[in-house]
Amino acid sequence: MIFEFPIRIYYEDTDAAGVVFYANYLKFFERARTEWLRSAGISQEQVARELGIVFVVAHTALDYLLPARLDDRITVRSRVVRLGHVSVDFSQEAWRTCEAIEAGAGELLARGRIKVGCVSRATLRPEKIPPQIRGAFPS
Amino acid sequence: MIFEFPIRIYYEDTDAAGVVFYANYLKFFERARTEWLRSAGISQEQVARELGIVFVVAHTALDYLLPARLDDRITVRSRVVRLGHVSVDFSQEAWRTCEAIEAGAGELLARGRIKVGCVSRATLRPEKIPPQIRGAFPS
Amino acid sequence: MIFEFPIRIYYEDTDAAGVVFYANYLKFFERARTEWLRSAGISQEQVARELGIVFVVAHTALDYLLPARLDDRITVRSRVVRLGHVSVDFSQEAWRTCEAIEAGAGELLARGRIKVGCVSRATLRPEKIPPQIRGAFPS
Amino acid sequence: MIFEFPIRIYYEDTDAAGVVFYANYLKFFERARTEWLRSAGISQEQVARELGIVFVVAHTALDYLLPARLDDRITVRSRVVRLGHVSVDFSQEAWRTCEAIEAGAGELLARGRIKVGCVSRATLRPEKIPPQIRGAFPS
Repeated sequence: MIFEFPIRIYYEDTDAAGVVFYANYLKFFERARTEWLRSAGISQEQVARELGIVFVVAHTALDYLLPARLDDRITVRSRVVRLGHVSVDFSQEAWRTCEAIEAGAGELLARGRIKVGCVSRATLRPEKIPPQIRGAFPS
Repeated sequence: MIFEFPIRIYYEDTDAAGVVFYANYLKFFERARTEWLRSAGISQEQVARELGIVFVVAHTALDYLLPARLDDRITVRSRVVRLGHVSVDFSQEAWRTCEAIEAGAGELLARGRIKVGCVSRATLRPEKIPPQIRGAFPS
Repeated sequence: MIFEFPIRIYYEDTDAAGVVFYANYLKFFERARTEWLRSAGISQEQVARELGIVFVVAHTALDYLLPARLDDRITVRSRVVRLGHVSVDFSQEAWRTCEAIEAGAGELLARGRIKVGCVSRATLRPEKIPPQIRGAFPS
Repeated sequence: MIFEFPIRIYYEDTDAAGVVFYANYLKFFERARTEWLRSAGISQEQVARELGIVFVVAHTALDYLLPARLDDRITVRSRVVRLGHVSVDFSQEAWRTCEAIEAGAGELLARGRIKVGCVSRATLRPEKIPPQIRGAFPS
């Protein structure tokens, strides 16, 4: 299963090289993971408050292939590659959406692997991922 | 005429006080102005390339009234309060969107006045606002 | 009394117009206010923890006069223009530091007025500014 | 050879979890690489203007080990692990600087590998790293 989320590029996302500042792909990927959870009816803020659990990013590995530019429309494609007891590994890609051409003919701008750990909000120690969140990521 | 644009609050927008970092309202307001232009068929990137004109923010004055929080849905309401020859003054507000209650019953989080100047991309000197852009902001 | 604080411009601070993204002056001004407090031996983190008091920015009004660019050295000059019971008004300026020319011959890039309120961390209600913090801002 | 660069954590760097937002380590690492070049008398802005060459980040792989917090002092330790014809691989670490204890007794917060490519500013095609920049990174 692949979750798709659209992003628009604004001035705030770019740098003096005229392209999207590479660190911002981490923001785009996080927005996509958040909306994936939300699409399954899960709010991170609520999970933190009610279950005392927060998600922390433990590892990120990204390749930056082509530059995104001001006003570009990006589609972030996310999928779960490993659903462990206390962590989830996501594979995520940012594609430039080309409205003029057929679907699937976009350009891959960046891709990466993100490991997110489930921890206690109080102690920051690893915690088992709650069942309702496991259910949001069908394998 | 009022242009409304929705924003979602992510971790990237917040700070250690648990609320949206105040400087980010400037980003939200800019996204809203950009989408207003886009809704009139105008791309800033295209205007820069074809007419050699860019818009620069010359003045901002904001009041921060109530904190926005993670996962909040914000509506930015924008209107033009003065359309000059070489600059536009916007009045912009950020409202928390409360889904549980009736429309109009949200909370005003921040409001401000933004002056945007029209300048030559090459010289950064003031330029007259092109007619097609004037047309996007009916008074 | 004027407090001066140096800032260096990195890619992260710029946007696709090739200059510093205007919202970032709010960050630069906050760094300067923080270091002013620190130079008086005051840590905001410690004040929050020990006195239950945090500072929130209530109002900002900035003029953006000239663009700062990648690798520029900026000096932020800050002074207190009003020290109230529950809030402080700062006047802050960002100057480009020109190493080749004499002191004082820099360029004023941005200037503004920032109102910071003192509030209870728990209730976010206004609180009197503690004496040790008042002492950090001699008038 | 290891280049050390100090960073201070401000509100702008943190998120609602009360810690430094992980994407910001990429900013800290870039500041450190920039200052390393500058310490060798090299300005990226000047290199771009005079040699038509810019550096683009092609790959980043980071582990986030411990959270940094508001007011923390960080030391970024950088070294070159591979100096190729058209790219450089850096190993970079962020350590919390503990003033109260002896040198070397800090905590490792994040570490990673960053690959930076040298490209033509005009074509974005790979270019050989100029000798004066190679000289800045002794192996």
